[in-house]
Amino acid sequence: MTNLSINDISKISNCEVINLNSEDIKFSGIAPLDRADKNQISFLINDKYLNDVYHTNAGAIICSKKAAELFKEKVANCLIICDNPHVTLAKISQIFFKPTHPFNGISDHAIIDKSAEIHPSATIFPFVFIGPGARIGAHSVIYSNCFIGAASTIGEDCILYPNVVLREGCRIGNRCILNPGVVVGGDGFGFAADINENVKIPQIGGVFIEDDVEIGANSTIDRGAMSDTKIGRQTKIDNLVMVAHNVVIGELCFIAGQVGIAGSTTVGNKVVMAGQVGVSGHVKIGDKAMLTAQSGISKNIPSEQIWGGSPARPFKEYTAHLATLNKIVKQTNKKSS
Amino acid sequence: MTNLSINDISKISNCEVINLNSEDIKFSGIAPLDRADKNQISFLINDKYLNDVYHTNAGAIICSKKAAELFKEKVANCLIICDNPHVTLAKISQIFFKPTHPFNGISDHAIIDKSAEIHPSATIFPFVFIGPGARIGAHSVIYSNCFIGAASTIGEDCILYPNVVLREGCRIGNRCILNPGVVVGGDGFGFAADINENVKIPQIGGVFIEDDVEIGANSTIDRGAMSDTKIGRQTKIDNLVMVAHNVVIGELCFIAGQVGIAGSTTVGNKVVMAGQVGVSGHVKIGDKAMLTAQSGISKNIPSEQIWGGSPARPFKEYTAHLATLNKIVKQTNKKSS
Amino acid sequence: MTNLSINDISKISNCEVINLNSEDIKFSGIAPLDRADKNQISFLINDKYLNDVYHTNAGAIICSKKAAELFKEKVANCLIICDNPHVTLAKISQIFFKPTHPFNGISDHAIIDKSAEIHPSATIFPFVFIGPGARIGAHSVIYSNCFIGAASTIGEDCILYPNVVLREGCRIGNRCILNPGVVVGGDGFGFAADINENVKIPQIGGVFIEDDVEIGANSTIDRGAMSDTKIGRQTKIDNLVMVAHNVVIGELCFIAGQVGIAGSTTVGNKVVMAGQVGVSGHVKIGDKAMLTAQSGISKNIPSEQIWGGSPARPFKEYTAHLATLNKIVKQTNKKSS
Repeated sequence: MTNLSINDISKISNCEVINLNSEDIKFSGIAPLDRADKNQISFLINDKYLNDVYHTNAGAIICSKKAAELFKEKVANCLIICDNPHVTLAKISQIFFKPTHPFNGISDHAIIDKSAEIHPSATIFPFVFIGPGARIGAHSVIYSNCFIGAASTIGEDCILYPNVVLREGCRIGNRCILNPGVVVGGDGFGFAADINENVKIPQIGGVFIEDDVEIGANSTIDRGAMSDTKIGRQTKIDNLVMVAHNVVIGELCFIAGQVGIAGSTTVGNKVVMAGQVGVSGHVKIGDKAMLTAQSGISKNIPSEQIWGGSPARPFKEYTAHLATLNKIVKQTNKKSS
Repeated sequence: MTNLSINDISKISNCEVINLNSEDIKFSGIAPLDRADKNQISFLINDKYLNDVYHTNAGAIICSKKAAELFKEKVANCLIICDNPHVTLAKISQIFFKPTHPFNGISDHAIIDKSAEIHPSATIFPFVFIGPGARIGAHSVIYSNCFIGAASTIGEDCILYPNVVLREGCRIGNRCILNPGVVVGGDGFGFAADINENVKIPQIGGVFIEDDVEIGANSTIDRGAMSDTKIGRQTKIDNLVMVAHNVVIGELCFIAGQVGIAGSTTVGNKVVMAGQVGVSGHVKIGDKAMLTAQSGISKNIPSEQIWGGSPARPFKEYTAHLATLNKIVKQTNKKSS
Repeated sequence: MTNLSINDISKISNCEVINLNSEDIKFSGIAPLDRADKNQISFLINDKYLNDVYHTNAGAIICSKKAAELFKEKVANCLIICDNPHVTLAKISQIFFKPTHPFNGISDHAIIDKSAEIHPSATIFPFVFIGPGARIGAHSVIYSNCFIGAASTIGEDCILYPNVVLREGCRIGNRCILNPGVVVGGDGFGFAADINENVKIPQIGGVFIEDDVEIGANSTIDRGAMSDTKIGRQTKIDNLVMVAHNVVIGELCFIAGQVGIAGSTTVGNKVVMAGQVGVSGHVKIGDKAMLTAQSGISKNIPSEQIWGGSPARPFKEYTAHLATLNKIVKQTNKKSS
């Protein structure tokens, strides 16, 4: 169990710490305001919970400067004041809760091709198959029943949870997390329709996933038809998402659960897609665009705009359109009643 | 092969049995009215098939009292009369068709941590990995390529089909069925967005699944961020469903294929969600609410109401709204033509 | 590496070849017009790229007769002229890019029941479990961590990528491809609702998949309740698709990513469903029907029609309806401003 002094925390988080009323507290964890005890650190991220600050037993509270102004003289708790309490919470949590793994080392029950290069500090669970020419970087952990195809590479400090499939010729950067059941490099959906058969077009591109990408359980990232499917650094993808062949996704995006992105579409940086969004093939989604839940996108979306609906339109226009329709329906019903 | 006399069936199903014209039939199975022979039991659940009753060769027919009144004196078949023929059919079917498994015992080709407790009556297939402190209850069956994380527990009489992943610190009740590829306890989608990175928030809650829950193939139930994600007893979840972190689902719900439920949402008891429904995070769905296919829910839904559409509204209002819009469109088109 | 002469290609593709200016080129691969070199074959499928024909370095270009008329006397490249350049491209690509597998033979680390029949030319990777009475045909390849249930059969020349689950009593034809994580034969979603329990209806049908079917990563095809779920020859299914129990899909269909088809629905031949379409249970989709992305289908669809929207209507009517609504909304907003 990790124990941290307030000094440790101050250094790690690069925050201002005030109300150092009990310097020798050893913090042992994190908890919400209403559940924390004096050895725990709590946090105020959502203003909804402001009143809880006055009643919490937490030994310390992570909060913004603005929030601290409201209560810093009214509470006795230690305050960890920062620009972005959400980020500070995440970073401190990472120290308390490092992932642990129920196996270490390279299992005798894994089948690893002789030409594969496994860093000695990597962990390979039982029942993993690693093909020829594959490479696994330092400190990466490959859970049981994963498959790593020929010549595929995984960087340092990655975690591939159980049953992840990474087919041949794909590249994963450093510090990536692939949740259970993720498939990277499955064949793209490419066929030429003839009269009495659908002829498969070999999918000979790969998948290139940059550093610090996380992919949710059972999501699928198809290999490219001729060139690579790509996912940029720091992009986070949720569960059951489908990314089709030749899609290129930029950096720092959030793609929520059950989103589908069809072939050859390009997604910019810092794009946010909410749950169950569908994006057609061959379109461009601009930087910092936001697509609301269940929206259906079949054309290019300009940067920094919010779109919603199916077919999608700019979000303000979409909500105004719905409101006007409601008004018209009400008037019509009134007349006919 | 199981053979049952009509007396056996009467006892098991707690039904009234009439027209005992051939007491010594040994029933060997179940079939639809148009395909059953005299050693088979058939059923009338959907009134659409009423006429088939007069032509069936089935030795016995499961039906409601109301239906029996219509034809009991016109047919010679044995009638198994009950309040809920669908339930009776299910219970009798379960006797004829008990699941069998192509492996029994605890495989030498499974890797089981020494500190795990496996009940001697449990079955562990080859290529299963079971972490430290995990517990598997009596008569439970863990198919090949499953992963059971540290300190996770599985009750009695469960079936985990192949490639199920149950990560660490999760609890499964008794008589649960997890279809192939289900992921329980994958990391929730929690990140704090900083300027140039998305900092992962460790997901330190677990998943708690009560008794008699079934989960469909390749569905994913994420672990909670701080507290547990929960699924209540007798709730049945279909394929490719996503349940996000901290979601709490009540008892006796039906969640159909490809539904997505976002983080921290609470679902009551006996809720029905049809296919491809999307529910936003942090909302409450009341008891016995019904959500129609593809509906999009972003606010609280009162108990016992049917909602549909995206954005959703009460179902009657939704269909009336669509009808009025259709009328307005027709009128407009008439004027302009 | 495969090398083909223009004569080889002419024979294989059954095309007319003109501009044989360098008969002894050995072609080594395929590339788009703007990237091909003189040892590569390129293609003109999309007229958008017509201008690239005049600047390409490709040694040969696959194109239609109509296109060839436009430029055959203006370019020096060899032209491979055919009725369907897309199909020709696919067929030639298949020769250059034959799938290779990182393991051959029948692994000692697979568990194969003694009563299973594995053709000696088949490949069984490590960590595969094959149940009693299962049969695997000639040249089929079963990747690691696949599960083949009792009495299930797989034809010739199939590929089951890693982590595919084929439960008991299911049949797969010849030349089928099951991408990673596909589940065939999971239990259908069948329960009888009683007051305080949902009684499982045993799912005793199987799944029958005909020849030349491909199924995308993590898709699920449920077993039938009493009869088989069926997928017709040459039908291609994308990733994360759900096909429920008793669904019958015809030949030569394309089912795109994240489509869901509910129980007992019948789909004709040459049907196309775009991404995220939802189809209710117990409906019929006629031959050559097309369903546009995200459409929601709850009634029968006639043959050869295009439908869209949710609830769906004929596509022209759907787009006209949306256009009229937009007009009405604009007029209303104008009046009220």
